[in-house]
Amino acid sequence: MPQRMIQINEDRLLSDLRDLAQIGATAEGGVHRPALTEADLAGREWFRQSIHQAGLALQEDGAGNISAVLPSVEPNAKTLLLGSHLDTVPNGGRFDGALGVLAALEVLRTLADSHRSLPCHLEAISFTDEEGNWIPLLGSSAISGNLNRESFTQPRGSKSELAVALARAGISVASCLTAQRNLDEFLAYLEVHIEQGTRLESSALDIGIVTSIVGIRSHWLEFVGEAAHAGTKAVAERKDAFWGAADFAIRARELVLAHFVPGVVNCGILELRPGAFNIVPARVRMSLEFRHGTKEQLAEMEKELLALAEQCAARFDLTLNRSPVATVAPAPMHSGVQATIAGAAEAMGLSHTRLMSFAGHDPQSFAHDIPTGMFFVPCRDGISHNPAEFTRDEDCIHAANVLLHSALLITEGALA
Amino acid sequence: MPQRMIQINEDRLLSDLRDLAQIGATAEGGVHRPALTEADLAGREWFRQSIHQAGLALQEDGAGNISAVLPSVEPNAKTLLLGSHLDTVPNGGRFDGALGVLAALEVLRTLADSHRSLPCHLEAISFTDEEGNWIPLLGSSAISGNLNRESFTQPRGSKSELAVALARAGISVASCLTAQRNLDEFLAYLEVHIEQGTRLESSALDIGIVTSIVGIRSHWLEFVGEAAHAGTKAVAERKDAFWGAADFAIRARELVLAHFVPGVVNCGILELRPGAFNIVPARVRMSLEFRHGTKEQLAEMEKELLALAEQCAARFDLTLNRSPVATVAPAPMHSGVQATIAGAAEAMGLSHTRLMSFAGHDPQSFAHDIPTGMFFVPCRDGISHNPAEFTRDEDCIHAANVLLHSALLITEGALA
Repeated sequence: MPQRMIQINEDRLLSDLRDLAQIGATAEGGVHRPALTEADLAGREWFRQSIHQAGLALQEDGAGNISAVLPSVEPNAKTLLLGSHLDTVPNGGRFDGALGVLAALEVLRTLADSHRSLPCHLEAISFTDEEGNWIPLLGSSAISGNLNRESFTQPRGSKSELAVALARAGISVASCLTAQRNLDEFLAYLEVHIEQGTRLESSALDIGIVTSIVGIRSHWLEFVGEAAHAGTKAVAERKDAFWGAADFAIRARELVLAHFVPGVVNCGILELRPGAFNIVPARVRMSLEFRHGTKEQLAEMEKELLALAEQCAARFDLTLNRSPVATVAPAPMHSGVQATIAGAAEAMGLSHTRLMSFAGHDPQSFAHDIPTGMFFVPCRDGISHNPAEFTRDEDCIHAANVLLHSALLITEGALA
Repeated sequence: MPQRMIQINEDRLLSDLRDLAQIGATAEGGVHRPALTEADLAGREWFRQSIHQAGLALQEDGAGNISAVLPSVEPNAKTLLLGSHLDTVPNGGRFDGALGVLAALEVLRTLADSHRSLPCHLEAISFTDEEGNWIPLLGSSAISGNLNRESFTQPRGSKSELAVALARAGISVASCLTAQRNLDEFLAYLEVHIEQGTRLESSALDIGIVTSIVGIRSHWLEFVGEAAHAGTKAVAERKDAFWGAADFAIRARELVLAHFVPGVVNCGILELRPGAFNIVPARVRMSLEFRHGTKEQLAEMEKELLALAEQCAARFDLTLNRSPVATVAPAPMHSGVQATIAGAAEAMGLSHTRLMSFAGHDPQSFAHDIPTGMFFVPCRDGISHNPAEFTRDEDCIHAANVLLHSALLITEGALA
């Protein structure tokens, strides 16, 4: 990196990462800090204290989101929002989410230390429950207005458990619904995250600029045949529901590899009835999930996969029932923000590429309304949601420095 | 049928079938009379009364087997054993087992009425728990000496429940082990049963002479890959355990259809872990069962199916664990008894064929030690173990008449 360029404080960032990892630390070296658990509340308190120590303003909302704010000299200025989340999946790792929040905090501290006069407010935010311990993207969707009372009707865990957990954090369903902000106040939203994949590592690249957070569609497929005695019913005369499901799984893989890469497909749940060594399966209920970068690609995948399921059912004289489940719309990232991140990486001499994010992230809550961008740094072997999750110190430092310079470019009018 | 030939009493047989079907009758028209339940005990009591009313001798043993005996004039004569079972599967049908017992009883009554002097004793037996509500073929294997204390260590249901159920019938584990008989006392064992398949019906044949009760081998197959995020892990890089299991199910079907018909294969249980829409399956545990008529055919099937499982695992970079489960040896029927049944059918002008039994039956308990034979009559649409199980009156009458004339041919020295 050119010596004259402003840089984050490497030791301070790495020290923060180590300290935060102690909160909810597991014996395997990971972190167990699911949203609204005692460990998560301790993590939030640690973040509040860090904000205080940095001399930044603390801001909290009814959805449990916590922000550090570095105000502009211009009170009516817009806000550039940087952030991620401090919660983890159960028995997760040290970097997923934490890196993005700490990098954002470090950017604000670095700029505060530099005594620059900023043309916009800077806000470093930790969103509540990105991982969906209760409701995925709870905090960011509360701010963007994508959360409503219906969002609370089917939390993971029971509604009463959710109420207790919210109360533990000093919030409630009603208070969450007060967290919506006027999105016009935001100049942009920007987040750095570990890749949770191997594309950067395998190509020895520093920075992955996200072009889109992929959309997800899912269905329940039920293949229905006829139960029969597994001895007396000739194989040629069976209507074995498992054959339909098995044929589909193999051919869906081939279809996606042939026509939809880098789109992905998964059959992750399979329930077979009646379920005995000596009874031909009558019914198979199977989950189907597929992801791709644009609405058009998703629609094409859906058409071809569902047609394939019908073919597989017909091949074995089965009937197919299907019902759509949750849908997540693809969230294309803002082209200007992508270019800005590329410019920041270039300026720092870091290699970069464009890629899609196949996992969900908080930027989805904002991508349709404000200029939103996201970039990845490598993580070892693509392992994430796992105690073995690891990102090298130098990549953590790159993360914060690219976030810093992307933020500076945006404050300087890069998106204007 | 030639007018001069002795025949069973059709009305008496059909009346018995109707009466017995009332015991454990279900709303759907079937019978729920699992072994050692109150309904089964009521069925046994009905059978005892029928034996008394027919003026036949009643004989019971420590395994709960109940027999009618028509003694020979020669006290040291051997016994020709005819029989089947009165127990049903849960929510089963009216003919499976019941037809064989009632046909055997009717044969004894017909011969008693005819006042013939028989060169051997005739015994019509109802075996305990053929269906394996507790232990498959309990009664017949107790007589043949194939039952021992180990047979009682893993009953369906718990050991204490089994003890209670045995006590309800006035028997015990210890008494079951006293039921073994000297197999030299038997001239032969002969059973008629409904086909539980469609081969007779679809060829419009009257009688199916069983050549062998097929052997069964089964294994647990476990395909082991790696759990992964169903978004971030590229399809081409996955080790999806379900792909191995699915590929195997489809190709095992093709293998058996191409090389092992009329052998059969079934994958009836499948458990997939961890089991979520968005997680690539790490482990699939699948049951494999296959059946064929001879030891040699079974061994060849086993070799090829297990090799195929290895290939399917290797194709997707998975490992395969496997463990054998229960084995049932094939039970070839006695060729002389087969010829005798064919002769009886011919004499009565009934069409017949030879076929394998793909379901297990009590003759397995005797086939390796005494001349044993079995034949089938058609059942509608092959439906069995189901309230809709149905065999026409004329086929029930054929069953008893062919049993009668097969028995007569054997008493007259057909096997000598």
